[in-house]
Amino acid sequence: MINAFAALEAKGLLEPFQYDPGPIGNAEVEIAVEYCGICHSDVSMIDNEWGRSTYPLVPGHEVIGTVAAVGAGVTTLSPGDVVGLGWHADYCMTCGTCMSGDHNLCLKVQPTIVGRHGGFADRVRASAASVVRLPPGIDKASAGPLFCAGVTVFNPLVQYDIQSTDNVAVIGIGGLGHLALKFLHAWGCEVTAFTSSESKKQEALAMGAHHTIDSHKPEELEKHINTFDLIISTVDVQLDWTAYLNTLKPKGRLHFVGIPLQPLNIGVISLLRGQKAVSASPVGSPQTLARMLDFAALHNITPDVEEYSIDQINEAVARLRSGAARYRVVVNMNRG
Amino acid sequence: MINAFAALEAKGLLEPFQYDPGPIGNAEVEIAVEYCGICHSDVSMIDNEWGRSTYPLVPGHEVIGTVAAVGAGVTTLSPGDVVGLGWHADYCMTCGTCMSGDHNLCLKVQPTIVGRHGGFADRVRASAASVVRLPPGIDKASAGPLFCAGVTVFNPLVQYDIQSTDNVAVIGIGGLGHLALKFLHAWGCEVTAFTSSESKKQEALAMGAHHTIDSHKPEELEKHINTFDLIISTVDVQLDWTAYLNTLKPKGRLHFVGIPLQPLNIGVISLLRGQKAVSASPVGSPQTLARMLDFAALHNITPDVEEYSIDQINEAVARLRSGAARYRVVVNMNRG
Repeated sequence: MINAFAALEAKGLLEPFQYDPGPIGNAEVEIAVEYCGICHSDVSMIDNEWGRSTYPLVPGHEVIGTVAAVGAGVTTLSPGDVVGLGWHADYCMTCGTCMSGDHNLCLKVQPTIVGRHGGFADRVRASAASVVRLPPGIDKASAGPLFCAGVTVFNPLVQYDIQSTDNVAVIGIGGLGHLALKFLHAWGCEVTAFTSSESKKQEALAMGAHHTIDSHKPEELEKHINTFDLIISTVDVQLDWTAYLNTLKPKGRLHFVGIPLQPLNIGVISLLRGQKAVSASPVGSPQTLARMLDFAALHNITPDVEEYSIDQINEAVARLRSGAARYRVVVNMNRG
Repeated sequence: MINAFAALEAKGLLEPFQYDPGPIGNAEVEIAVEYCGICHSDVSMIDNEWGRSTYPLVPGHEVIGTVAAVGAGVTTLSPGDVVGLGWHADYCMTCGTCMSGDHNLCLKVQPTIVGRHGGFADRVRASAASVVRLPPGIDKASAGPLFCAGVTVFNPLVQYDIQSTDNVAVIGIGGLGHLALKFLHAWGCEVTAFTSSESKKQEALAMGAHHTIDSHKPEELEKHINTFDLIISTVDVQLDWTAYLNTLKPKGRLHFVGIPLQPLNIGVISLLRGQKAVSASPVGSPQTLARMLDFAALHNITPDVEEYSIDQINEAVARLRSGAARYRVVVNMNRG
């Protein structure tokens, strides 16, 4: 039996919950969970915001742990390996998208906590393809958020062939945004943080931003016309996207990794004049996860986390809900 | 003196108009005009739709002719060369965008008919950089539309590294769209035409489309989920863009070369799931024009044009306004 924590109803607190995972699948890995981060999408699933939740619902998809068992067909991982698991727990492995290395875009992809039980548990199962080994030099206690927040902001740098000479801005300095600043700084880019929080400005500079812009002052945006090659937006609110498009250089890109609740309201002319693009992407492929971990290890990039004990799991969720966490919440799943 | 045809007021007919172009500039070329196509943006300028028109306004930016004179600093063209001139007549030549080969995105670019006099005249001036020599095998009488409509739809294939194995659709089979079909067919792509016109369906197939889809039937779009790598939209009307985004494969792109009058109304989630992009671009650089002309010559690609004599210039404009032209209108500027 797996000892987990589950919401038993929409918006419910997490309560002890046991389930029998059955015999391990041929291509499956069972991870003994040591740390698990909490992400906004865990809260969205607990609250059934997307209408995709079934209860009991075991959240948790920023898992760090040790391989406890592997299925008969697994050749890439062995018991004892230190690994992580992110938003996706299985891929079809055979479609053109998977076969092209874009597993995270597979139409049959299985999110770790949608129709499956996640990482707030002593053990969690996932396909071997979705479980990535931690390279030496990665700190287990803070690595969880790399597997969702981290890869989500690292992925566009790989996908769009971002150059070290590019000028890149980040909208929203939170769980995703603070990691974007760290990755971009190590990537060699000129980095700007859009934030309206005075205290976050100082932290953004310390994390690697070269500049900050007060996003609540439209005149500040107007001073930066034709400046950025890429803007990564991590926020879920509606902004004046046309004003941000105007800060892009010709051929620049406004890329969303956060999902604003309202549709974009963008005139084609604001894209056309400078051949600009608007795009969005979800997390990253297993191979991109592995590249990110190597890059993070080389450059000593770690998420800023607030650690809670397993007995404080509901306090940890409440802390994330408060929006005050700096910058990511991780639960230490080790007992005692 | 240059003998031109000008609108003397917004929405006016074209009337004979003479102007003195002054001494030829150091980097300028004077073209003796033989053919000039009419484009929807000529009509927009005649009508002052964009608030950028000054009168007398000489339209015409799909110019084919012979170099009559060159400035002292011009080394790339000589009198007698057969050339064309498109939407842009001058670039700053020194900004980072020009120096990167993206002259059409230069912030100081000068459109041929905005603050300048265009090609409905016996002669027209433009910077040598914006004037491109016709390669052997290009038919002068129909080549004009390549310089605006043609390069506008050819440019995205170059910009986005479209592969011969890609599956590409075109929305709107008109002046731009019919050339897109021809280029895409020669490029080696699988080509689909979105059109609601029964007669255009047959013509689209004859031009190189492998498939047609009735764009007025939403259920037809639903049958093509996850099909296209690229969709090029040439229309200026508002469509259900989310339905079109759903027909893109993962990593697909919806690219606008026509400008819908209303803002796009696109949810980020419809981009995010498949890492899709929305983008737009204006015409192409001089180097892309040259590449397009070589490609058109090799593959015998010519615009379908209706030819009018210089005495019918206002009939030609009226024909374009009617929307019935198949598919582009060219005025033969040769007298007699």
